[in-house]
Amino acid sequence: MENHWALRDKAAIVGIGQTKFYKRAASPVSEFELACQAIINAAADAGIAVRDIDGLTTFAGANWDSDLMANVLGMKELRFANNAWTGGGGVTSSVCNAALAVTSGIADCVVALKSLKMVNRFGQASTSADMSGAYAYMVPYGMLTPAHKIAMRVRRFMEECNVRQDALAAVAMASYHHAQFNPNAIAYGKPLTRETYDNSRWIVEPFHLFDCCMENDGAVAIIVTTAERARDLKQRPVYISAAAQGMEFRNYKNSNNAPDYASSNYKVIGRRIYEMAGIEPKDIDVVQNYDHFSGGAVAALYEHGFCERDQINEFCTFENLTWPGGKLPCNTSGGNLAECYVIGMQLMNEAVRQLRGTSTCQVKDAEFAMVISGSMTSPTGNMILRR
Amino acid sequence: MENHWALRDKAAIVGIGQTKFYKRAASPVSEFELACQAIINAAADAGIAVRDIDGLTTFAGANWDSDLMANVLGMKELRFANNAWTGGGGVTSSVCNAALAVTSGIADCVVALKSLKMVNRFGQASTSADMSGAYAYMVPYGMLTPAHKIAMRVRRFMEECNVRQDALAAVAMASYHHAQFNPNAIAYGKPLTRETYDNSRWIVEPFHLFDCCMENDGAVAIIVTTAERARDLKQRPVYISAAAQGMEFRNYKNSNNAPDYASSNYKVIGRRIYEMAGIEPKDIDVVQNYDHFSGGAVAALYEHGFCERDQINEFCTFENLTWPGGKLPCNTSGGNLAECYVIGMQLMNEAVRQLRGTSTCQVKDAEFAMVISGSMTSPTGNMILRR
Repeated sequence: MENHWALRDKAAIVGIGQTKFYKRAASPVSEFELACQAIINAAADAGIAVRDIDGLTTFAGANWDSDLMANVLGMKELRFANNAWTGGGGVTSSVCNAALAVTSGIADCVVALKSLKMVNRFGQASTSADMSGAYAYMVPYGMLTPAHKIAMRVRRFMEECNVRQDALAAVAMASYHHAQFNPNAIAYGKPLTRETYDNSRWIVEPFHLFDCCMENDGAVAIIVTTAERARDLKQRPVYISAAAQGMEFRNYKNSNNAPDYASSNYKVIGRRIYEMAGIEPKDIDVVQNYDHFSGGAVAALYEHGFCERDQINEFCTFENLTWPGGKLPCNTSGGNLAECYVIGMQLMNEAVRQLRGTSTCQVKDAEFAMVISGSMTSPTGNMILRR
Repeated sequence: MENHWALRDKAAIVGIGQTKFYKRAASPVSEFELACQAIINAAADAGIAVRDIDGLTTFAGANWDSDLMANVLGMKELRFANNAWTGGGGVTSSVCNAALAVTSGIADCVVALKSLKMVNRFGQASTSADMSGAYAYMVPYGMLTPAHKIAMRVRRFMEECNVRQDALAAVAMASYHHAQFNPNAIAYGKPLTRETYDNSRWIVEPFHLFDCCMENDGAVAIIVTTAERARDLKQRPVYISAAAQGMEFRNYKNSNNAPDYASSNYKVIGRRIYEMAGIEPKDIDVVQNYDHFSGGAVAALYEHGFCERDQINEFCTFENLTWPGGKLPCNTSGGNLAECYVIGMQLMNEAVRQLRGTSTCQVKDAEFAMVISGSMTSPTGNMILRR
């Protein structure tokens, strides 16, 4: 790849939508209906008719077919239907796939979406745990949940880079801090003090209760079209300056002998994305950083070049990561930890609000926002958005 | 969309691979291992190292994660992982997605793949048939399998367009005819006469036994890179001139009140693809046409403009559809009916062989080949390849 990305600023986000966010299993409607609601809201935000959407892209699977959704929504034509073949690493990749479709002329107006209604809990080991594949080597040792798996990697990362618990606490407290300004956040009205954080129970060391995201219901939809068409629409366009997807050599999420076990999988694309966008880390005004567990988010900041290896503790402080006034406000709507866990997709909407100037924790004159998909998973992705 | 496709001839197929094709459940290895074998064979064909592949795309789902596959194959980096969100309509879309990735610079060398090992039979209704969603309205009436569903649409198509059983027989017999020249075909050495066809049992009217594809095991892999890189590789490049994906308004595969119930879902993109490629139906030298059931393939030929509505019977004859000498040789390696049913993906490899000049039923000087994905399903897709 050259130092310039052919699609830089060629596609734009023109509409965002979401549902009410619910605690686990509290949604009165299905995952499919949540998704439809989010799409309808995104179309209204963009000022376009739902029937004019002609593409659907998601990630981490959907429990319905794309054609059923096109049929129910009355789409005039479905011209692109796509699923990023990954889990939480697919937040930005699903939006990038929408950008590939519209810039190539395959489709005109594509919605990237994620919907979640918790039926099988992520956080609770099944009594009939899957014992096939890699799990056969993990389950007998008590490695049952995402928290177990990410904790092992984060512990190694903390050891290798001398990262203190304070850095993890700063990420968690920043998310809860920002959620206090966002009435849509599940943790709105529930501020977190450092004392409460410290005294909360361990889920898996080094993760306290507040280092772990909740299990939630909700849906998010993002409408992407070409930069050219975006100019005639209702909202100020937010341009996609760069997007990358990546898994490093043998850094498979379930392999506990990965060559760089402590990596958040951003060693390569964490640097490449700046070349694609033609900017540097110091140009990023605000970051939405996948915080299913606080420690992965700390590693992702380091691997995106926001600080050097020996500066992680100095950089990852509550003061630096919070609005107003922080060097790099992080998860300004509350993130996965305190807004809602829609497999991270709601981070996209907040990045767009920041660049429109409509966040409840608005970073003044924000021009570039970064969105980081799931850390310490594979393949993952990232994106730089421009006002 | 304009009359020109931005990506015309910008991406190329540089390697094809496949496994041995097996009767149902006869593969000694897993679906995952079949897929790995096909990729290794495709890399050898292209003259590249497996580790240099940096993208994976498939369709109709895979029962493993993309990162596991990248890990097992030793890929240096996985930069694109993608699943066309559809079933048999995804043959061409998965290859198109690979083209989007390489032409945008997201990845350098992407493999599109499909693997199948039959565990749950497509053709046998489950004793605990799924009764949710659309199925709740179909199962009580005995509409249990793909054959039932496609038969209803084909019967309507035959009534509306005065199509005779002879047209269906011609598609089936063409596939079996071509399979006699292809030692890799499952029906190799098992020629089909019209008498045998006529005397075979009805599976679902209007489908005789030989109008229905078999259930098979096997895998297919196709390597895509940019036209520029393709020039330096081992094989003569085959260029992707056009690709489209589509589902018409409310023409959902499971809705039996679709506005155009008899359509194979190609009314729109069956015409659009020629504009994208800048050619006309008469320019197509050979077609690989998804024949899971013969009748859908007949409808797809009509909707791709190879004949007019009142000429379907005259056009769809054994003479016209067969090599050597036919007007439009169709499924020249045996198709889904007689080569192998890998959800149609093996049709891509045969299109490439035709344009390389290496088919066992080689159409002389073939310059343009068309691949048609699953008919009477949604969303579906098509592709024009150029020598």
